[in-house]
Amino acid sequence: MRVAKPVPSVAVIFISKLQLQDEAYAESITRLKELGGQQPGFLGIESARAPDGRGITVVFYDTAESARVWGKNPEHRSAMKTGQEKWYEYYELYYANVVKGHAWSSDAGT
Amino acid sequence: MRVAKPVPSVAVIFISKLQLQDEAYAESITRLKELGGQQPGFLGIESARAPDGRGITVVFYDTAESARVWGKNPEHRSAMKTGQEKWYEYYELYYANVVKGHAWSSDAGT
Repeated sequence: MRVAKPVPSVAVIFISKLQLQDEAYAESITRLKELGGQQPGFLGIESARAPDGRGITVVFYDTAESARVWGKNPEHRSAMKTGQEKWYEYYELYYANVVKGHAWSSDAGT
Repeated sequence: MRVAKPVPSVAVIFISKLQLQDEAYAESITRLKELGGQQPGFLGIESARAPDGRGITVVFYDTAESARVWGKNPEHRSAMKTGQEKWYEYYELYYANVVKGHAWSSDAGT
């Protein structure tokens, strides 16, 4: 059964297109997911990337402060810099306050 | 150059996994994008789906009321019903108030 992330919470929405997917990118993502997942206030991450390089990642935090701390993490910032230099064609980044949430799954019974 | 969606705005975040991608699904998505894109208050849509069926769509609106109107659109609701019956393994749906936004693109100069 699928459970919705807690509400209220903060969603950081990262919309991007990759122009290069090399080994260093894959390693960086693995490392950042591990590091970010250990951060206080982290509630969950959802990510999807299409074969053409377009992707969306949504990271949920308990508060705006937790989201802000991760945004200033040195290893995270260093990866974003490399992202601008090599990996991304473009990206958009949004901070949003989640006010309503709902989960549904086919195995939840009818 | 990439331009960020207006802030403040409302983001509807739809996280899903498809268990079936048939022709009717593709037709439904095309139709809903056309219909939803004409709705007052619609600001933009971003969507990415991975080959394994996991996908994220973020739709931006000017106000919570515009988002609510689309949520109650009969054709949209009918498609969501079919989605539960056939297409989706699970989904999560969030309404969030966007408080900060930023766009970056590699062609914007340095």
